[in-house]
Amino acid sequence: MALSREQLAQIEEQRAEQRPTRRSVAPALEDILYQPIEVLDHGLIRVIDYMGDDNAVVQAARVSYGRGTKKVTEDQGLIHYLMRHRHSTPFEMCEIKFHVKMPIFVARQWIRHRTANVNEYSARYSILDREFYIPAPEHLAAQSAVNRQGRGDVLEGAEAKRVLDLLKADSTQVYDHYVDMLNETESGEPVDPTRPGLARELARMNLSLNFYTQWYWKIDLHNFMHFLSLRADAHAQYEIRVYAEAMLDVLKRWVPMCYEAFVQHRLGAATLSKNALAVVKRRLAGEKVTQESSGLGKREWIELQAMLGD
Amino acid sequence: MALSREQLAQIEEQRAEQRPTRRSVAPALEDILYQPIEVLDHGLIRVIDYMGDDNAVVQAARVSYGRGTKKVTEDQGLIHYLMRHRHSTPFEMCEIKFHVKMPIFVARQWIRHRTANVNEYSARYSILDREFYIPAPEHLAAQSAVNRQGRGDVLEGAEAKRVLDLLKADSTQVYDHYVDMLNETESGEPVDPTRPGLARELARMNLSLNFYTQWYWKIDLHNFMHFLSLRADAHAQYEIRVYAEAMLDVLKRWVPMCYEAFVQHRLGAATLSKNALAVVKRRLAGEKVTQESSGLGKREWIELQAMLGD
Amino acid sequence: MALSREQLAQIEEQRAEQRPTRRSVAPALEDILYQPIEVLDHGLIRVIDYMGDDNAVVQAARVSYGRGTKKVTEDQGLIHYLMRHRHSTPFEMCEIKFHVKMPIFVARQWIRHRTANVNEYSARYSILDREFYIPAPEHLAAQSAVNRQGRGDVLEGAEAKRVLDLLKADSTQVYDHYVDMLNETESGEPVDPTRPGLARELARMNLSLNFYTQWYWKIDLHNFMHFLSLRADAHAQYEIRVYAEAMLDVLKRWVPMCYEAFVQHRLGAATLSKNALAVVKRRLAGEKVTQESSGLGKREWIELQAMLGD
Amino acid sequence: MALSREQLAQIEEQRAEQRPTRRSVAPALEDILYQPIEVLDHGLIRVIDYMGDDNAVVQAARVSYGRGTKKVTEDQGLIHYLMRHRHSTPFEMCEIKFHVKMPIFVARQWIRHRTANVNEYSARYSILDREFYIPAPEHLAAQSAVNRQGRGDVLEGAEAKRVLDLLKADSTQVYDHYVDMLNETESGEPVDPTRPGLARELARMNLSLNFYTQWYWKIDLHNFMHFLSLRADAHAQYEIRVYAEAMLDVLKRWVPMCYEAFVQHRLGAATLSKNALAVVKRRLAGEKVTQESSGLGKREWIELQAMLGD
Repeated sequence: MALSREQLAQIEEQRAEQRPTRRSVAPALEDILYQPIEVLDHGLIRVIDYMGDDNAVVQAARVSYGRGTKKVTEDQGLIHYLMRHRHSTPFEMCEIKFHVKMPIFVARQWIRHRTANVNEYSARYSILDREFYIPAPEHLAAQSAVNRQGRGDVLEGAEAKRVLDLLKADSTQVYDHYVDMLNETESGEPVDPTRPGLARELARMNLSLNFYTQWYWKIDLHNFMHFLSLRADAHAQYEIRVYAEAMLDVLKRWVPMCYEAFVQHRLGAATLSKNALAVVKRRLAGEKVTQESSGLGKREWIELQAMLGD
Repeated sequence: MALSREQLAQIEEQRAEQRPTRRSVAPALEDILYQPIEVLDHGLIRVIDYMGDDNAVVQAARVSYGRGTKKVTEDQGLIHYLMRHRHSTPFEMCEIKFHVKMPIFVARQWIRHRTANVNEYSARYSILDREFYIPAPEHLAAQSAVNRQGRGDVLEGAEAKRVLDLLKADSTQVYDHYVDMLNETESGEPVDPTRPGLARELARMNLSLNFYTQWYWKIDLHNFMHFLSLRADAHAQYEIRVYAEAMLDVLKRWVPMCYEAFVQHRLGAATLSKNALAVVKRRLAGEKVTQESSGLGKREWIELQAMLGD
Repeated sequence: MALSREQLAQIEEQRAEQRPTRRSVAPALEDILYQPIEVLDHGLIRVIDYMGDDNAVVQAARVSYGRGTKKVTEDQGLIHYLMRHRHSTPFEMCEIKFHVKMPIFVARQWIRHRTANVNEYSARYSILDREFYIPAPEHLAAQSAVNRQGRGDVLEGAEAKRVLDLLKADSTQVYDHYVDMLNETESGEPVDPTRPGLARELARMNLSLNFYTQWYWKIDLHNFMHFLSLRADAHAQYEIRVYAEAMLDVLKRWVPMCYEAFVQHRLGAATLSKNALAVVKRRLAGEKVTQESSGLGKREWIELQAMLGD
Repeated sequence: MALSREQLAQIEEQRAEQRPTRRSVAPALEDILYQPIEVLDHGLIRVIDYMGDDNAVVQAARVSYGRGTKKVTEDQGLIHYLMRHRHSTPFEMCEIKFHVKMPIFVARQWIRHRTANVNEYSARYSILDREFYIPAPEHLAAQSAVNRQGRGDVLEGAEAKRVLDLLKADSTQVYDHYVDMLNETESGEPVDPTRPGLARELARMNLSLNFYTQWYWKIDLHNFMHFLSLRADAHAQYEIRVYAEAMLDVLKRWVPMCYEAFVQHRLGAATLSKNALAVVKRRLAGEKVTQESSGLGKREWIELQAMLGD
């Protein structure tokens, strides 16, 4: 990531101002407000705004006239209860807004979460920067042999070099041609005044999916945790997972009680199917159960064993 | 409305606290934060929290690194442009949360706006107060003779008294019986220890639709304005319209530029159908147009005349 | 439930017509299309329309040009895989539409599921029938002593009679007064021509929450199963649970493979929190675990024991 | 577009089967069910399924027990009334599902319509075809000089050739390298067995935004018309507008009454802001109004003149 001097100055200017408010304040989140957190080679997340804190969840669940808080242990207990029993509406009462910069192929996965608000930087209207994602060597993985939707061993030596060289060369070339077709300087003047520039909305189609885009993204706490549970999961593609992991830290700063309940009842939890539950019961009763006698398919059997640490 | 001493104290306690924040602040909204605004005979709205201001709309539309503001006139122009061309996503970047107390039949209309977050006071879990809506005499209207979904003349004298007496007597009676069936004091003790109380989730069914319920309601600015455009409209039922009107004042305090654009391009705007537009063009060209030659149905013709102030 | 002769004739008329279609057809669902299924004392559900079947899920998951089906066991395996791994979008590709008649307090819970489409019979516009819900004696339960949101023992003898008498008398009275205030016959003529009738939108507020309303309700298969998992659950209030249970039969007729996967991975499944999973592992390793050593709260400990059939 | 022989056979096979149904049937839509309609150079839309017809809108609005239809003119009148007064819920009672193939940059605009269901062909899991969009010469436009988000004159001669050559060469090259990095045949065997292939989820990032993707897309009639009103509009980018235009024909076949009302009250309608309405009134009263005296900004003034055909 390389924020320009001007961008850093704008961020610092915003951070410098403080104003009094009667609203809930999350001090640990205020500490990092507006600050860029680096992700991948040129990406970032920044918290731009937020509404509510742990207390707002409690207050809404109790539909109270005041803050609605009781003893800390009671509030914690209520939050765990709500999370465990999937009472989602009190968690919808908090909201957070991010500025995110990520490769387009990551943005394409991200946007599938529909219960959020998005304003994306428009390449119909503006010119994208020369910024594209090149995987770090340790993340350059072969296709998995066992999982059609996954990664296998890391590529090494000549193989890695071959791939990185192709990615870099192609990205550089498509951007050069993008600029060439646009034929305009940053201020909108033609570079070569003897010829017209291609419309921005057309020229952008020459860019590849590893180019960076950016957007403002706003989501309520319930849907934010749902997003994190899917995207911080081991099955998520590495390039989106790193964004989710950076956001887990944000969650912890913002609503520490909800974070703890989320780890307990979502991130670290496990779901047993009807048959898998029956297997566990039989094993607890002392019975030896094999895949054949379990009623589970092979894949679910393996997943169950992994879950139980066998 | 009669807030209890304890409730008023809780509100004052919350209002008394101020903390510094780096977030956007809307000073005119801070002034009334948490304060009850009375609506109908026992209803209220209170702003509980908010996120963003006029500037946040501009900032998101520009996907900026800083506040994103330019000259005031440029920001105003942008907001009008966005509103006029129905670019809704920048307005989704602000959020507001209310505590609302309203009759159940109003809540039933309100909840049809699905793009919002709600936590309602649960009558499965808690006991509702003895508070029901009785229309003020000037709002006690007869059925409209021309519009099946509307009101006609105000009832007067004996007729008004008859209706008000029925409403009051029935409301009082169903609540008395509700309490009787529950057979429990506020602290959960049986009133008559020799008999069990009916489950709250069952007893509540005896209450009528004019009883008050309350909820926390959170919505983004775009959907809030959509709600207001439908519910502050002359066709909305009076009892929900007064809530929308109280909220228009809140909108003005919160995001004055958006408010102005909203009045200009939504509340005060008019839509001409294809045929109605043709009528206007013909009239501007000096032609006399009658309903027969207009291609409009009778009802749309009348509406068009009203719109054009004929 | 008492459908009028005219309503039954309309239903039969619709059932009698068959037309050829190139679309997917679910024969077992066609068998009951439009037919009323009775729920509670005056309620019903009727399937009005549907789109897609088990195959449509498979077809969408494979983004295929044809039907997309392979061997039955492969299709079944795919559906189980999608359900187990919470790939929800293929299940969103099927849609179902119901006509539902239920008490207003049930409708108020139901409407909280926002990802659905609803057209409710309007009491602003039309006059509601004299139909209200009175619980059968075996469902007339006392307030639970242990769960503030639940039912305890069934009321008996004089207690039951007392409650039923109150409910019936009040429901009858509020409807009589509703009719009196409206002062109009079914065809809209005044009953007493010497006085005006109260506007329908006002008169309805005198009705209690056990009166029946009705609506058309349309939802996709994914959200339908989510609704069923919450409302067919033992914690749901009895009066909405019976609707969900009737709908489970509809689900089975419509998409038998999805139904089976739903029972396996949702209805019959169990979620272990991080700490509960640790308890299971320790017990499988032969350790005795007590609540104290489990890290679980008392309530979750009891729930875990129930889940494991201890 | 070039569907393979196998794909065409699958489509014909599906079209050949007809089954009886009790549901509503839209005959003119059945005629084209499953058939590909070509859009752009390699794109297509196909209607895969639908639910409801004009009658379903009427039936839901009347919450009827039978078909709910009255005289054709009454049904038409009701549909126009609903559309004119923005009663959107009856239109939500119909649903349609498409198979769409379009360039990725078009898919990125399309997906912003959140109230729809989508299953996209996964390039994490599968290998994309060598199909990319190259604009026809008559759509190869220069950047607009007056509108930052629009197109100006068509490029000609050497300029057009230069751009087309760049687009074709780069698209060909990035696909060649994509295949090279994957190092696998269609059946998943390595092309060069001495080296591993890059994971599909990584290799795809080398493809440019003009490559074709495809998805199943399902939406209700209300939101479908909203999509069409935005994307069939003259301000929409040409490459998505052609999809919307093809879909307008589908709409007409499916629900001809709704189509007519949609053209009348949406596509062909115009919105006047509060100030613009005042201008029209003054002009109808015989007054000459200039931009200066109108209270309108320059841009809105020009738009108003265009709307009124001045």
